[in-house]
Amino acid sequence: MSLSDFQWASRVADIAPFHVMALLGRARELQAEGRDIIHMEIGEPDFSSPPQVIEAGRQALADGHTGYTPAMGIPELREAIAGHYQKAYGVKVDPARILVTPGASGALLLLAALLVNPGDQVMMADPTYPCNRNFMRLFEGQSQLVPVGADSHFQLNADHIEQHWNAKTRAAMLATPSNPTGTLVSLDQLTEISQAVNAKKGALICDEIYQGLTYGVEAQTALAVNDDAFVINSFSKYFGMTGWRLGWLVAPECAMPELEKLAQNVFLSATTPSQYAALAAFQPDTIALLEERRAEFARRRDYLLPALRELGMSIPVTPEGAFYIYAGIDHLTDDSFGWCQDLLEEEGVATTPGLDFGIAGARTTVRFAYAASIDKLEEAVERIGRFIQKRA
Amino acid sequence: MSLSDFQWASRVADIAPFHVMALLGRARELQAEGRDIIHMEIGEPDFSSPPQVIEAGRQALADGHTGYTPAMGIPELREAIAGHYQKAYGVKVDPARILVTPGASGALLLLAALLVNPGDQVMMADPTYPCNRNFMRLFEGQSQLVPVGADSHFQLNADHIEQHWNAKTRAAMLATPSNPTGTLVSLDQLTEISQAVNAKKGALICDEIYQGLTYGVEAQTALAVNDDAFVINSFSKYFGMTGWRLGWLVAPECAMPELEKLAQNVFLSATTPSQYAALAAFQPDTIALLEERRAEFARRRDYLLPALRELGMSIPVTPEGAFYIYAGIDHLTDDSFGWCQDLLEEEGVATTPGLDFGIAGARTTVRFAYAASIDKLEEAVERIGRFIQKRA
Repeated sequence: MSLSDFQWASRVADIAPFHVMALLGRARELQAEGRDIIHMEIGEPDFSSPPQVIEAGRQALADGHTGYTPAMGIPELREAIAGHYQKAYGVKVDPARILVTPGASGALLLLAALLVNPGDQVMMADPTYPCNRNFMRLFEGQSQLVPVGADSHFQLNADHIEQHWNAKTRAAMLATPSNPTGTLVSLDQLTEISQAVNAKKGALICDEIYQGLTYGVEAQTALAVNDDAFVINSFSKYFGMTGWRLGWLVAPECAMPELEKLAQNVFLSATTPSQYAALAAFQPDTIALLEERRAEFARRRDYLLPALRELGMSIPVTPEGAFYIYAGIDHLTDDSFGWCQDLLEEEGVATTPGLDFGIAGARTTVRFAYAASIDKLEEAVERIGRFIQKRA
Repeated sequence: MSLSDFQWASRVADIAPFHVMALLGRARELQAEGRDIIHMEIGEPDFSSPPQVIEAGRQALADGHTGYTPAMGIPELREAIAGHYQKAYGVKVDPARILVTPGASGALLLLAALLVNPGDQVMMADPTYPCNRNFMRLFEGQSQLVPVGADSHFQLNADHIEQHWNAKTRAAMLATPSNPTGTLVSLDQLTEISQAVNAKKGALICDEIYQGLTYGVEAQTALAVNDDAFVINSFSKYFGMTGWRLGWLVAPECAMPELEKLAQNVFLSATTPSQYAALAAFQPDTIALLEERRAEFARRRDYLLPALRELGMSIPVTPEGAFYIYAGIDHLTDDSFGWCQDLLEEEGVATTPGLDFGIAGARTTVRFAYAASIDKLEEAVERIGRFIQKRA
């Protein structure tokens, strides 16, 4: 038997592999050879899952919670998430509007399937999380990348919506805090954007995957100003539960029957022990621990931000969320991927080239994750400084 | 804000909700009211996950296995799956060709994305597992339903491939054991089908989700005769791990880089504790337990099959796998959904109407799952007999 004459579907060629995967693979090789590697490339908190969550997961297994759940998730978790919106953000969300998903990826998948016909466009900022673009392509839609800069805090604003919306645009997508830039969209901005999208009779998707990880400013939710937004969230980042593959989607009531139908088909339900474990994520003692971790992320940002600026990197907007700094290195290179490769080979610091996040400025930017201890960040800054000097 | 003018993507209207979901919902309502309901509608083993697996899951959590894994799955599990093919089927599979997925659903998603361009067709038997059709529609492809009957054991065969293949057909999809019919494809048939698909330069997808659950015949794998088949499998059925959301895909070597890229985008990785827990699924003592359970399923089939035939139902091919009996009730109704609804209301037996599985014969067939104890099956048969008599 042979498949040699078979051509994959066209979408496959249009979805580029992430450059960071090559760097991550090489970093692991070097590590296996005994090299000391500092990981600033990975979008994963370096903290383990909270012990309360782990214990709840163990208890769920002991209690035999290993069967399918409803496609929307277990009712207790949907209620707990609603409770969290009330307690942390003072926003009332009907649990019936909350769908538990296998990671935020599951929510993105459902939304792309729900909203995007072939040829439809979804507007998003360039730079953006690369999977967003690829989810649209997966469903034969297009991402409509709008280059954004320091003037709009590397975010879409109402002017962008009005200026770039066209006959094929179906939705606009925001991310706050943003991956890769760490910048936020204020509630005032969100209101303006919502009105602009509404005027176009479009849908608004708001990625709040890094919600809760903000520094010096209060965390917020788009649901405070727009009840009809599609809001994506995750237990991976603030709650430190990456490997549990659990997220959620808040959607307008009218979308829920369609979303449930899609969920029944594409994933049946999210992992059951993960759902029960996540109930412990909202306990006061767990939140207290997560707030300590947030303070530690804040200290890291407060160290890394001026240090990178001192190295001559351009970071015109102070990142106030997530755990990323998106730094301009146009004075150093116009080949961000090559620069990241060399930095890894020569100094053992792994980073992500701008190339993974978009087109505009992609060759002259690097994303640094501060999901590593301050000791390691200090060592990384020393190495990066040496690397830059050697090449000067 | 309002979404009232927004139209969902066209695919949404083309994906029908499962009729069984309405029945399941109603069954739970009745149960909540205190009615005694016998569940023969659900595709979930009534056995809990093996204690070895549960213990391994608890240990994985205690060991802190809660971060992301590689998109392809942890190497140990890919090797364990390869070892299982060797030990149980005498088939050598390179672990590099095994991709661990979030349930078999994740594997189906990847395959639809990999193989199907808009307008492409994938040939499959009618009746078939309903999500298969919907996955094709999700990616703008079409399922090409070929009505099959007792003469081909309710399976596609090489003649079907040759007769129905057209310019838009890209792949054929088999399921052995089949959901809903419980019938198998023999290795001889598989060889013929593989040759026919190969001659058309198409791809062959083989759903082996119920692999291992066969009665009176040896379990088999398409990989024994076709190294280029895309084989989907699951930890849900034979291994009793539904809620862990874990499956796998075996694919030709040339497809692996593309599949990895898609997996990185659509789900990042399967649930981590589930992956570690699944390592225990292949232990000799776990397999011994699963084989006891298989013997119990065999006893149930051996009870239920003649009992349903005695009720006058048409089951022309003995189901040799999965835990389903697909029974013709054309002497009783031409409205299978209504019949199932009445049976539930009047006698508290929940079943799945043929309507969920296809078009041909869908109104005159019912699927009975025997994922319930023999006591309950006996009670169900008594109730069904009474229900039929009342209406005669």
